[in-house]
Amino acid sequence: MKSRKEGKKKLYGYTGHTLAKMLVTALTGIITGMFAVLLTKSVGAITEWKLGILEHSHEKEAPARGLVSFLLFWVIGSALVSFATAIVQYWAPASAGAGVTLVMAYLNGNHVPNLLRFNTLISKFVGTVCAVSSGLPMGPEGPMVHIGACVASVITYMECKCLDGGIFNIFTNCFGRRRDFNIKEKMKILDEIVSDSDHREFVSAGVSAGISAAFGAPIGGVLFSMEEACSFWSRKTAWRCFIAATLSTFTIQLLNRSAQHGMIAFTGLRQMDNKDWIMQLPFLIVNSGMAGLLGAAFNSFRMWLWKVRAVKTRHVLRILEVIGLVFLVSLVGHFFGWAAGQCKPYPEDWLEEGYGIRYNCEEGKYNDVATLFLSSQHHTIIKLFSVGHDDMVPEEETGVYTPPFSVGGLALFTTIYLGLMSIGAGLAIPGGLFMPSILLGASWGCFWGLILRLWLPKWNIMPGLYAILAGTGVLAGVFRSAISLVVLVVEGTRGIDYLFGVILSVVIANWVAHHIHHDGVYESELERIGNVYMLRDEPPHRLFTLTAEAIMATGVCGFRTVEPVSRILQVLRTTTHNGFPVFAEEGSTEEDVVSVAPSNKALVSLANSSSSPDMNGSSAGPRPDPLSGRLEGLILRSQLLVLLQRRHFCDVDGRPIGRDYSEQQELDMETEMRTFFRRYFTHARYISATAQPLDELKLDGVHAGSTTLDLSNLYMDLRPYMNRHAHAAPGSPLTIRKDCSAARAHQVFINLGLRHLLVVDAHNHVVGIITRKDLDHAAGHGWWRMSHQAEPPRNK
Amino acid sequence: MKSRKEGKKKLYGYTGHTLAKMLVTALTGIITGMFAVLLTKSVGAITEWKLGILEHSHEKEAPARGLVSFLLFWVIGSALVSFATAIVQYWAPASAGAGVTLVMAYLNGNHVPNLLRFNTLISKFVGTVCAVSSGLPMGPEGPMVHIGACVASVITYMECKCLDGGIFNIFTNCFGRRRDFNIKEKMKILDEIVSDSDHREFVSAGVSAGISAAFGAPIGGVLFSMEEACSFWSRKTAWRCFIAATLSTFTIQLLNRSAQHGMIAFTGLRQMDNKDWIMQLPFLIVNSGMAGLLGAAFNSFRMWLWKVRAVKTRHVLRILEVIGLVFLVSLVGHFFGWAAGQCKPYPEDWLEEGYGIRYNCEEGKYNDVATLFLSSQHHTIIKLFSVGHDDMVPEEETGVYTPPFSVGGLALFTTIYLGLMSIGAGLAIPGGLFMPSILLGASWGCFWGLILRLWLPKWNIMPGLYAILAGTGVLAGVFRSAISLVVLVVEGTRGIDYLFGVILSVVIANWVAHHIHHDGVYESELERIGNVYMLRDEPPHRLFTLTAEAIMATGVCGFRTVEPVSRILQVLRTTTHNGFPVFAEEGSTEEDVVSVAPSNKALVSLANSSSSPDMNGSSAGPRPDPLSGRLEGLILRSQLLVLLQRRHFCDVDGRPIGRDYSEQQELDMETEMRTFFRRYFTHARYISATAQPLDELKLDGVHAGSTTLDLSNLYMDLRPYMNRHAHAAPGSPLTIRKDCSAARAHQVFINLGLRHLLVVDAHNHVVGIITRKDLDHAAGHGWWRMSHQAEPPRNK
Repeated sequence: MKSRKEGKKKLYGYTGHTLAKMLVTALTGIITGMFAVLLTKSVGAITEWKLGILEHSHEKEAPARGLVSFLLFWVIGSALVSFATAIVQYWAPASAGAGVTLVMAYLNGNHVPNLLRFNTLISKFVGTVCAVSSGLPMGPEGPMVHIGACVASVITYMECKCLDGGIFNIFTNCFGRRRDFNIKEKMKILDEIVSDSDHREFVSAGVSAGISAAFGAPIGGVLFSMEEACSFWSRKTAWRCFIAATLSTFTIQLLNRSAQHGMIAFTGLRQMDNKDWIMQLPFLIVNSGMAGLLGAAFNSFRMWLWKVRAVKTRHVLRILEVIGLVFLVSLVGHFFGWAAGQCKPYPEDWLEEGYGIRYNCEEGKYNDVATLFLSSQHHTIIKLFSVGHDDMVPEEETGVYTPPFSVGGLALFTTIYLGLMSIGAGLAIPGGLFMPSILLGASWGCFWGLILRLWLPKWNIMPGLYAILAGTGVLAGVFRSAISLVVLVVEGTRGIDYLFGVILSVVIANWVAHHIHHDGVYESELERIGNVYMLRDEPPHRLFTLTAEAIMATGVCGFRTVEPVSRILQVLRTTTHNGFPVFAEEGSTEEDVVSVAPSNKALVSLANSSSSPDMNGSSAGPRPDPLSGRLEGLILRSQLLVLLQRRHFCDVDGRPIGRDYSEQQELDMETEMRTFFRRYFTHARYISATAQPLDELKLDGVHAGSTTLDLSNLYMDLRPYMNRHAHAAPGSPLTIRKDCSAARAHQVFINLGLRHLLVVDAHNHVVGIITRKDLDHAAGHGWWRMSHQAEPPRNK
Repeated sequence: MKSRKEGKKKLYGYTGHTLAKMLVTALTGIITGMFAVLLTKSVGAITEWKLGILEHSHEKEAPARGLVSFLLFWVIGSALVSFATAIVQYWAPASAGAGVTLVMAYLNGNHVPNLLRFNTLISKFVGTVCAVSSGLPMGPEGPMVHIGACVASVITYMECKCLDGGIFNIFTNCFGRRRDFNIKEKMKILDEIVSDSDHREFVSAGVSAGISAAFGAPIGGVLFSMEEACSFWSRKTAWRCFIAATLSTFTIQLLNRSAQHGMIAFTGLRQMDNKDWIMQLPFLIVNSGMAGLLGAAFNSFRMWLWKVRAVKTRHVLRILEVIGLVFLVSLVGHFFGWAAGQCKPYPEDWLEEGYGIRYNCEEGKYNDVATLFLSSQHHTIIKLFSVGHDDMVPEEETGVYTPPFSVGGLALFTTIYLGLMSIGAGLAIPGGLFMPSILLGASWGCFWGLILRLWLPKWNIMPGLYAILAGTGVLAGVFRSAISLVVLVVEGTRGIDYLFGVILSVVIANWVAHHIHHDGVYESELERIGNVYMLRDEPPHRLFTLTAEAIMATGVCGFRTVEPVSRILQVLRTTTHNGFPVFAEEGSTEEDVVSVAPSNKALVSLANSSSSPDMNGSSAGPRPDPLSGRLEGLILRSQLLVLLQRRHFCDVDGRPIGRDYSEQQELDMETEMRTFFRRYFTHARYISATAQPLDELKLDGVHAGSTTLDLSNLYMDLRPYMNRHAHAAPGSPLTIRKDCSAARAHQVFINLGLRHLLVVDAHNHVVGIITRKDLDHAAGHGWWRMSHQAEPPRNK
């Protein structure tokens, strides 16, 4: 605190701290961009190598040809995914899946253990490369979000260590070895600057950088971060996201000369004029509506499949699951390629790019169904988007149009891919849903466009356009976002000419999907996980008819302003609460002596009733008496632990025992309280609520100063420290009256980023407490999208 | 309330009300789009007619030619603007200027009298047509925002009337004739549905529709609404904005076949590759930095000029001011056209479009400086954006490049236009700043680009690109927005290829301008207006070091739960407060009888101290005793007025006097309380705080039922009605402890959309109240952009 004098290092309002934060933001963007380039290059190299091997197998005779190709595809794929899954299962379980949901949960205020560690980052990156290049129906976009978030977090902590303890410390700490709790550490520079909310801002910036790197869409990245990922948004966050996203896109352009903005950009379709748009409107509506249906169907299948999946702890089963999917993909691709595929001559540009799988066709031809199933998804999407573009002129000359994929093949692919994709989501391997969703939509749109074109050859119908719009529609059906999606697609495809169609598609697909079920993929996933509490900005419907009293947890454990150490230890050991109210000593310390005779009886009986959901099953041992009284303040478990560790004791009247504390020591202690979790339990905060840190304190024979003291005569004065934790501004804690509506409690809680909201009666006596858990329980299930405003309740 | 049974008219979750709201949103979009088309067409027609007349004058001989042209330009312009200014001054003063700031203030929670009336809409539209077509340095974009907001508001109220009282009522009400307060009205359908917050949502949608119609940029419109205009944002608001913006753009495309998306779209410049971008980076930085400087300079000049402008009430002076500006524009254009203009041959496409002013040149040539000053700004911007595009090939052939505007002319124009634009902002005529800002930037960028091109002919420099980026930079310098600006420019110019440059320009210009002064044009304007209280999302710096006690207004006037009517009337007459706390009758009605002896002495003395800023000068007459006590609830002036009007009296024990009320009547009354302002004081809420409604109540001889009662024995029981107003959910009012930090009070206030926040002590006794005014005063001046997080204060 002392080091932060006013005017120090100030240059036009910028202090060194601002600079350090800017540096973190900029580095996040640049390094995320580098990861994206590395990802693209690795996936490209592996895929090319794999397809090269497959190509050789095609030299063989007819019956062996298919079998060899199938086996090669499966074996290579299995090797890749086994490696990736093993890493995930045994080393970094937090890196499974897309990771977007958990990052959302973190940004909402949950602490998710190990989510943003360095090993999660490495495992995510390696796993994504393996998953995408092995041919699984998974994309790199979702993982890029998680990678961006990890990069932001790792950089923040690295910079802390760097500025603090030198380079060597970085490596011991990156891999998340927990530090001993009792080591007294030096003050750290960034520890003081980077608060929890700053860290959240950096992670938000990382999310933007990740998505913008994946799509080559800086603005879309910022909007995705705002619309989907972040729960707290401010102008400052917006600027951080903006800068990180721009720098990551720019880094990609610098490193990868062939990349322009727009990862799924394609050579332009013709423009459509207003007349075309209006005439094709009914077809476009069917196109988008069906895309929305597909998206919703995917969500439903995926949720249903959770019933039959292997549980997280069965490592071998989980690995076999992934290998099974590779087998399925390979089997389906080769079987239908053989049974339903048509041989078509290569278009010119395909040969150059090495796109198209020959499989069982003669030289110079490719099998269209096998190509759809077995090629790189990224390339297939671009090809589907381009259908009906440059082959326009020959059609008018000859009257016959040969699309690069047959109508039947596309229908088959759409159906089967939906199933494969549903199986793929939720495996123990990193992989995202954006790319598969787009591919699913693109194949449906292309199918529908080709049918229309055969039916109405004069109508100037471009299947590629239908593919773009349907791809957008499936994304809308799966994710239920709106503006960010439009911008992502427009920036990603560079198709600003089709803005109107994209908007139409998003609106219709959202509308259709909303009527199948309410939840987007992120929301339903968060609800399924169950151990994070995702609180939405708007209070859910149910809360409008409840009062705060109905949703609060009763039986609040509290402390007096001067409390015996033994009772504090007992409470800390027997509960897992993180916040405790502090009650006034009635009739003694307060200024206005005309005080209330405490009506504690009712409260204590209330507290002793067994209806407390917050305390049941938390731990064994004797339950401490829940005190109650007029509220004075709130103190956190972390603060108590620091006070205990520093032996900050006093006698029954509040006079300090043992040594006196200098101002510097007091400041140190405050800093330690603020940075408690980041110092000792960075990646696994839940440990702080167990008995472990208490055991490490070694409070059996307490040495304060030079004398050994008896624990039973020691007290702690909580007054100087209550209400001074990181989440709340100093002063009194915010409270709410018990007859307030629960919706209002939700608003206060969310908007102020609280973790504990005390509920009081008319005389300011504590009757309960509201935490994230209580709000989440009260909201019920599946409400996320249903929270429209209730009618003003009537309290007759 | 009864009419809103569950399950009624429910179809997939959509009730009739949802449909009605959707209809309002959609109509807002469509009608705003129509206004935009009508505006474009009218301006185009008038400008064409004006230029036609000017063209004829050029047939004359040399000396007379300039004079005649000058006079014609001035006379026609003066006629147009006199008409517009007269309308504004005498009929609809709220329509002056761009209107964006006041709409922002409305959306922040202020009530701005007459801002969203039908006559404001008409005056705004007519005025904008006149201002833009007369050649003043003003654009139609800002006014389109206000027009969209007015359209949304008018449609909402129209639909209310339509569903309620038939068509005839609409016309009597549109023009804002105030209804008599005492007319008992039937229940209205939309009155129940459309709450204040719904109305705000519709207005937000109108803002999006307006800006998206002006730029042809639906996504940009939504983002502008979010980033600049709205203070409250939710997913629902986002969807409304999205739909309205899309429909308005679509309407324009349907009605105006020549319009594609992108109002300032131009035929494409060549693409620049990465190498070009990096080589030109230093020039681009200078370009954007200078643009930011220009924007900041404009803001400073504009604010300085307020000192010498005519005051609002001097009608004739205000009209003369505008005529003077037309004179100046005309004089400057003709003089410099004559003194510094060069005659250049028309490029091919200019003649077709009728662009370019011949002035004193021979047949087939145009005067470039006169063209810059006197043409339609919209066309000039497009021409500047296209400089250096299609004339690339001839240059390489001949080695000589003739730009359509001379370097000197552009420099002259940039300088003088900055002055004209500064004078133009703040006149009594509708007109926006977007278009002039872009023009200013474009001319600077074009100048800079041309210089670079002459200096470095091999470097592949496109002045048009520099013009786009500088235009964006000036916008950023003036408005200080970020993401919405990028999207607006990209959508408006359809130049997605220059995304990187646009982002760079916005960041640099913002950075530069921020160091000149902190406020964007909207913020400084809001601060200047002074009678609206704009509260930002993030608490300003100063509040972090204050407590709630330090910023609250003391001397709160309150009522007991059962209060004599005479005292209520006295309080209502002698104060202008809108909310009053209700205190518990100590020791009587409360459940727990072990109650506090009220320590009222200190409080009363506090209240009587003269430090109350909220009550000083509010009205004459004897001051009522400010009661105090333990807080029970909050009641609003509007509720008291309704209760008084309905003669809802009781005796001293709370037993009703006169007739009993049926349930239906009670419901009616509650509806009336909720919709009070919309019913009686739609466009001028401040009247409700005057004595006028009290006079209209005619409470001298009170008839309750059939007996005439003496006023002195009548009481009102406030308990059933307190805490039931529109802004607060039922239950207890939200309070804050006096030792809470003021920043936290700000957060609670803003995030929950409060109007009154009561401050209590540890025993729940009211010690003060915080309103918008108090927060605004406490924040000080010019803090808007400086609100970075303060260090955690230490309360030693």
